[in-house]
Amino acid sequence: MNLTHPFRDPDGDKLREECGVFGVIGAREAVNIAALGLHALQHRGQEAVGISTYDGREFYSRRGLGHVAQVFSEKDLGETLPGEMASGHVRYSTTGGSGLRNVQPLFADLSTGGFSIAHNGNISNAASLRRELVRRGAIFQSTSDTEVIIHLVATSRYPTLLDRFVDALRMVEGAYSLICMTDQGMIACRDPLGIRPLVMGRLGDATVFASETVALDVVGAEFVRSIEPGELVQVDHKGTVSSHRPFGNISPRPCIFEHVYFSRPDSVMDGRSVYSVRKQIGVELAKESGVDADIVIPVPDSGVPAAIGYAQESGIPFELGIIRSHYVGRTFITPSEGARHAGVKRKHNANRAIVEGKRIILIDDSIVRGTTSMKIVDMMRDAGAAEVHMRIASPPTGHSCFYGVDTPERSKLLAANMDTAAMGAFIKADSLAFVTIDGLYRAVGAAGRNNACPQFCDACFTGEYPTSLTDLADRETPDLLTLPVNKVA
Amino acid sequence: MNLTHPFRDPDGDKLREECGVFGVIGAREAVNIAALGLHALQHRGQEAVGISTYDGREFYSRRGLGHVAQVFSEKDLGETLPGEMASGHVRYSTTGGSGLRNVQPLFADLSTGGFSIAHNGNISNAASLRRELVRRGAIFQSTSDTEVIIHLVATSRYPTLLDRFVDALRMVEGAYSLICMTDQGMIACRDPLGIRPLVMGRLGDATVFASETVALDVVGAEFVRSIEPGELVQVDHKGTVSSHRPFGNISPRPCIFEHVYFSRPDSVMDGRSVYSVRKQIGVELAKESGVDADIVIPVPDSGVPAAIGYAQESGIPFELGIIRSHYVGRTFITPSEGARHAGVKRKHNANRAIVEGKRIILIDDSIVRGTTSMKIVDMMRDAGAAEVHMRIASPPTGHSCFYGVDTPERSKLLAANMDTAAMGAFIKADSLAFVTIDGLYRAVGAAGRNNACPQFCDACFTGEYPTSLTDLADRETPDLLTLPVNKVA
Amino acid sequence: MNLTHPFRDPDGDKLREECGVFGVIGAREAVNIAALGLHALQHRGQEAVGISTYDGREFYSRRGLGHVAQVFSEKDLGETLPGEMASGHVRYSTTGGSGLRNVQPLFADLSTGGFSIAHNGNISNAASLRRELVRRGAIFQSTSDTEVIIHLVATSRYPTLLDRFVDALRMVEGAYSLICMTDQGMIACRDPLGIRPLVMGRLGDATVFASETVALDVVGAEFVRSIEPGELVQVDHKGTVSSHRPFGNISPRPCIFEHVYFSRPDSVMDGRSVYSVRKQIGVELAKESGVDADIVIPVPDSGVPAAIGYAQESGIPFELGIIRSHYVGRTFITPSEGARHAGVKRKHNANRAIVEGKRIILIDDSIVRGTTSMKIVDMMRDAGAAEVHMRIASPPTGHSCFYGVDTPERSKLLAANMDTAAMGAFIKADSLAFVTIDGLYRAVGAAGRNNACPQFCDACFTGEYPTSLTDLADRETPDLLTLPVNKVA
Amino acid sequence: MNLTHPFRDPDGDKLREECGVFGVIGAREAVNIAALGLHALQHRGQEAVGISTYDGREFYSRRGLGHVAQVFSEKDLGETLPGEMASGHVRYSTTGGSGLRNVQPLFADLSTGGFSIAHNGNISNAASLRRELVRRGAIFQSTSDTEVIIHLVATSRYPTLLDRFVDALRMVEGAYSLICMTDQGMIACRDPLGIRPLVMGRLGDATVFASETVALDVVGAEFVRSIEPGELVQVDHKGTVSSHRPFGNISPRPCIFEHVYFSRPDSVMDGRSVYSVRKQIGVELAKESGVDADIVIPVPDSGVPAAIGYAQESGIPFELGIIRSHYVGRTFITPSEGARHAGVKRKHNANRAIVEGKRIILIDDSIVRGTTSMKIVDMMRDAGAAEVHMRIASPPTGHSCFYGVDTPERSKLLAANMDTAAMGAFIKADSLAFVTIDGLYRAVGAAGRNNACPQFCDACFTGEYPTSLTDLADRETPDLLTLPVNKVA
Repeated sequence: MNLTHPFRDPDGDKLREECGVFGVIGAREAVNIAALGLHALQHRGQEAVGISTYDGREFYSRRGLGHVAQVFSEKDLGETLPGEMASGHVRYSTTGGSGLRNVQPLFADLSTGGFSIAHNGNISNAASLRRELVRRGAIFQSTSDTEVIIHLVATSRYPTLLDRFVDALRMVEGAYSLICMTDQGMIACRDPLGIRPLVMGRLGDATVFASETVALDVVGAEFVRSIEPGELVQVDHKGTVSSHRPFGNISPRPCIFEHVYFSRPDSVMDGRSVYSVRKQIGVELAKESGVDADIVIPVPDSGVPAAIGYAQESGIPFELGIIRSHYVGRTFITPSEGARHAGVKRKHNANRAIVEGKRIILIDDSIVRGTTSMKIVDMMRDAGAAEVHMRIASPPTGHSCFYGVDTPERSKLLAANMDTAAMGAFIKADSLAFVTIDGLYRAVGAAGRNNACPQFCDACFTGEYPTSLTDLADRETPDLLTLPVNKVA
Repeated sequence: MNLTHPFRDPDGDKLREECGVFGVIGAREAVNIAALGLHALQHRGQEAVGISTYDGREFYSRRGLGHVAQVFSEKDLGETLPGEMASGHVRYSTTGGSGLRNVQPLFADLSTGGFSIAHNGNISNAASLRRELVRRGAIFQSTSDTEVIIHLVATSRYPTLLDRFVDALRMVEGAYSLICMTDQGMIACRDPLGIRPLVMGRLGDATVFASETVALDVVGAEFVRSIEPGELVQVDHKGTVSSHRPFGNISPRPCIFEHVYFSRPDSVMDGRSVYSVRKQIGVELAKESGVDADIVIPVPDSGVPAAIGYAQESGIPFELGIIRSHYVGRTFITPSEGARHAGVKRKHNANRAIVEGKRIILIDDSIVRGTTSMKIVDMMRDAGAAEVHMRIASPPTGHSCFYGVDTPERSKLLAANMDTAAMGAFIKADSLAFVTIDGLYRAVGAAGRNNACPQFCDACFTGEYPTSLTDLADRETPDLLTLPVNKVA
Repeated sequence: MNLTHPFRDPDGDKLREECGVFGVIGAREAVNIAALGLHALQHRGQEAVGISTYDGREFYSRRGLGHVAQVFSEKDLGETLPGEMASGHVRYSTTGGSGLRNVQPLFADLSTGGFSIAHNGNISNAASLRRELVRRGAIFQSTSDTEVIIHLVATSRYPTLLDRFVDALRMVEGAYSLICMTDQGMIACRDPLGIRPLVMGRLGDATVFASETVALDVVGAEFVRSIEPGELVQVDHKGTVSSHRPFGNISPRPCIFEHVYFSRPDSVMDGRSVYSVRKQIGVELAKESGVDADIVIPVPDSGVPAAIGYAQESGIPFELGIIRSHYVGRTFITPSEGARHAGVKRKHNANRAIVEGKRIILIDDSIVRGTTSMKIVDMMRDAGAAEVHMRIASPPTGHSCFYGVDTPERSKLLAANMDTAAMGAFIKADSLAFVTIDGLYRAVGAAGRNNACPQFCDACFTGEYPTSLTDLADRETPDLLTLPVNKVA
Repeated sequence: MNLTHPFRDPDGDKLREECGVFGVIGAREAVNIAALGLHALQHRGQEAVGISTYDGREFYSRRGLGHVAQVFSEKDLGETLPGEMASGHVRYSTTGGSGLRNVQPLFADLSTGGFSIAHNGNISNAASLRRELVRRGAIFQSTSDTEVIIHLVATSRYPTLLDRFVDALRMVEGAYSLICMTDQGMIACRDPLGIRPLVMGRLGDATVFASETVALDVVGAEFVRSIEPGELVQVDHKGTVSSHRPFGNISPRPCIFEHVYFSRPDSVMDGRSVYSVRKQIGVELAKESGVDADIVIPVPDSGVPAAIGYAQESGIPFELGIIRSHYVGRTFITPSEGARHAGVKRKHNANRAIVEGKRIILIDDSIVRGTTSMKIVDMMRDAGAAEVHMRIASPPTGHSCFYGVDTPERSKLLAANMDTAAMGAFIKADSLAFVTIDGLYRAVGAAGRNNACPQFCDACFTGEYPTSLTDLADRETPDLLTLPVNKVA
């Protein structure tokens, strides 16, 4: 009998993308396009959203907690957020904690004029840079790693904003796809490794930037190209686009997990359909670890494409053996750690009539802590499944991400603590298999992983981090989250 | 280029179930169970929700606009809504208009004590009954048809609450699944034709009632049985269950559209898995109107089971050619008529990589106004589809419902205005076919429709209404919605 | 050292008027006039406010908790509450408890059309009438005594609204000044004894009704006359005024406490300036119980006029020895019993520079529980007063009011428990004196109290209630406040 | 007939003090004391309020729009704002505009630790200092002049916080009474001229600072002494108090208008009772410009003490000829310019019964624009006054204040545009007189104004500003209010 609170038990057992960014310049009522674009990126961050605009004279902004459609709900957005240039941000609370002051875009009045910044990624030396900036007299408004970039720009000795901006970026390490606004126009850039995605599109005379192509589709823009790793693109108010490459040539390492889970299936990432890659992972899984069974069941919704691929490759029928409620976001509601447990059933319910008496293959995208998988296996058995075989559309996740994905500390990752056999026993499946790292690389179109020079950032699977991790190494440097700041009550 | 507001253009081109009801008696912190149960029924009504409880001494209630998880969000629900008996309601605004005063459960202090009522369905002689009650001195609090039942109970000459209640029900026509609470316990009942569903379950020592079995699953209750058409079940505080049959024997006519669209696929309705019925409709469709094509694409999410059935029967691969955003409810947001148009794309986006160059079969559950279908066909062509064949998992919807489903007036129903060929031309599909009425009956397990004595209410397809429609016939009787009431500003 | 909460300790040691009413018919944007008029009556009720309007077709209403200026704050009131007829109400929570559903005007759809009612006073047989109405099938929306009148009107057998209304009033006992609206126009009436005040004014072509003349002044209306005790005045939409006297001749007994405390000093009550009466009470006090002292200090603000009168009569200088904060309402904030204690100082602070070393005469309007008086005497001594003589501008309040004034139960009234000497000792004054009942009658212009047939209702001083007190006598009849109603959580 | 909105027409024709500050260190649940103290200072700023606390480990803060009792209304303040040190601020919107980010205390994380600041006054070279700070890389969070001080502290080259703070203060010009908090304790200081007040008190073991003595009274603290002009007082967590005098000897020039209007009458300012000074101004007025009349009427409430003094000196009776509603703050509601006009009557109503047929002397504290005076004279005549003689308890206000008082620009000050005779004609009084500047100095205890070296800042009357006005002089320096900042929508 249920005596616990009905809505206080979400079990957020997923890795979470922390942010999405969107920008548009050269469009009437740019705010409306930005809101629609951010709505299409809502899966990248559901805790908070902000939009800044510029109308040729002044900057305007609104930032709020909640979904895009809640914070930007009124009819006449264009009156309160006027202008033909707008940029926005959706976020989770990774670095910096919850709270309105960390919601982006951040804004500052610099001596060069107003400056707004929206950031997808994570600066891995933010705490040590901040310590030095404060020593020199900087006053921080937020606990966000992104604010470090603004202060570096503000205190740079270079005369122009663009030079100052590049000067600042040379000092930061980590992952960043940025959309900035000045009174001169918009700047979009991507870190030298291109860890986080960023694409450019065209909407009539306007230029659009977004984390994923789906946002271009939804606002009606055409895809132009990806911003290259290490590239900085400037667009002025006349629509002139110029490209800069301040970092020289570095082999890119885009995040492979974007393909596995973060991105929307209807996005095209680095030239490949996310949906097709996920189906192909299912195909690889079926080849690598086939099993005799009656039906293939996806864990909705992220497991669906891989399950379709698995079913087509194996010839075993695809069935909706788990029904997902439409009335919750992914697998969780709130950003607080305490609220992640239990509650699986109000999101996922067994379709008993289908499952009963069947040998089933369950397809999920990943295993993080393993608690959700355990509950779903259990739910399938309760519904009468004869056998439950779990297949996972990514390799074991054994390492934390420091590039903008909300991962538990390593000790809480199931794959950091046990091998696949033990994991299978832990979740009580009849069998468990993960796609291999090479299978995953094949699914994204490579011949396999180039271990000498990996084509992607796959640190969460392999532990091979493509940048140094300054803050982590420096035991003297406090975590941003524990800085002695003012608590807003 | 988009100059319209990004979130003001939903296109609610679906029939909408108006209500779900849930009740539990004999459980500690009953409100928590009720909130969870209503959450599982959220698809039946997303505009407003209410829960009433009784703690042995007093009745408590909270009613609010929004989703269950919004209105009942706090930790300590059990303190503000105490007691071991609770009933609740989720709703759209059909009869009675929007506004908090129409949110159920309704409550009244009768001479027999407190009386709370939650109603799924619609009383088709409510306006004429109301006119007479007001003439005799009754004062209405709401514009809800349900309040008519309360006043009939209040003014009945019978001495006991149960007799008064039956006396009242004998006067009403239409569809009603009711969950009532008195200080003696809970009463659940279903109209003589059983138009709306109602099931009973068991959760430890507690008795549970719900519109669908999925709510039993989610709260962890076992399914006991359906409440029979015309049956009235009483449960007292000791858990004693008694059944009454005040209406004699009438052939039941449950709503067939519950199978096609309203109910959740993981519910079991009158002994049949809703998911399996929908898959079977897809099978019937494939048999009745097969077409040569490359892929089968569901219009998500309601078209998915039929599409799986169609794909399995036809051997044509099932693919997710349309991706649905998780951040909107079914196909609309707000209950106002004006807000239903446009906005298809922010809910549904073409998965271009899959669709491009293909001959596709689109499977949807129904066509109401046809505007959404037209936009989706258009979106598929924009994404490069070579041919678009639309198959619909229900017969043409040519008649309005007066039993608790929000349908446009008949003149706005596409099928009331043109034949299938014209409809196909209207939505610009290469071909269009609907499952036949006999195909639909076969999918739900009959040999076909018994035209002499139809097994279901299928008035929306056939125009054969199983009750008289008093209010509709009586030109003197004003619509409840146009009663000269007090506007709350 | 202060460890208690700074704003949770108001000490509401005053009698409180429960209501003010205002109506206007025949004016453009009547709601604006009503809001302004109610603002001028805010001292009569600070917990909640409501306004209803009628625009020739429909009734509109808004009711809210808080002050007039909070609930009716927006620019375009005339759009949401349109029409040339408006009536409104400010209230405390006497009969019926707090909660929005008890906020007036109440509204009902009767068979004769819409009916709105605003009531100042209290029906002393409401509970027994309600019991009978519920027995006959009436369903109450509120726990307000006023709703009884509506149900009596609704169920009356007379054909016209006016006859039904008079029929209803014949059944009720107690105090009522009513402003009602129907689609025919406005009805204002005063109970046969005229216990509560009601005046009529003229604003251009419009007719205005209000509890006090100050509301006429503030909206710019001219005073026409008082509504007579037992008079019922009808005004139709053409402005035709007709007067009715359904109750025959009864000697009036208006409330004398309106002069002492409730009414605003700039009102004229039954032909006498409230300010002048209060000054005159001070004069009587100085004559009856003069004392040698250095300065006369009012307890602000209600004691100011009497203190001016006392000072002028006695020749002792008037000084502001107590300063009152502008940032609290009278002597309390919230309507809950628990919140009435302590906190005197944040409302009243000693003006130490004036008080120190002086023999002072403190003038207050009344003593209810005595707790405030005790604290103020104490505060004066802390500030260095050499002697503290308390003079009270009303006789000892030894009886509860059942006519619409919020009085504690009798056992908590200080004067019900001890004589003047003991009261003086309790509040620790060097001397204490009250004006005599005859002194009070002289101040309002009589030769003295006519004990055979008192000119006023002075039951709070004398215990002589001018009506029967049915509910009080009937031990079977529950208090309205304890009715088994639905708790809104 | 009234067709304008009832609550949108306040006529803020008064000078407004912009701020009050309060601090306490060494007391349990310091926040409760701070909230109560700020409530006692509410008359100094009604738009917004903030409190910061420190619990030995972290700083906490809450800032909000509205009154103290609204923003700090909950029971358990001590839980969300813990600690034994608290400081707070009430404000109007002078420099910096409205908006939450300008609400104080401001907070910054400096390299020396957390630093919080609350400021009463105005920095008259803030804009030029800000321009230079931004040039050097400072990023401002607010448009408040106070934030300049924080950045000067942050970028000072001195090693200790105290040295940095003094270094910063040496750079600023203007008026400042400051209460700062660091992890070492509290710092209170007053600018070298002592323009704004600041007092110190003792509450058990705790030390208290406040703008006025009334706040000490209300929290139950004893007055210890005023902070001297140019003095900086430090209190550590053990309660050790140390005094510093970093600015050398300068003749003080405290604001004389604090006596005339800003301070509460029960405060003692620089050793003199504010109430007694105001009465004495009335006495001086009666001597300087007596007139034959029937009654003396104060414009409530600020004119009351001077009217009592005038009445006592002249022998003409003091009467409440104008009644003030309790339900508005001073003479206005909202901080926006547009909302200041009209609406006099809903705040002040003529007490017609007293005024009619009388020759009256009206006593008010000051004339700013003259619009209110004109309306009040008009209201008195409407009420039947035979003659209206206006006497003003301050000299003509002909100059703007740049030290923290919200004055209209000079061109809108009536006294900057006409002489007394013309002003009398403008407001339509039978006669008008102001107290002379020497009369005012006599009332505050001097023999008269020392023109060579004035004892007070009386710039608003004389135009003699005691500091240079850098921002005003520098045409290159933009007003803080027009800085190109981010508009929060």
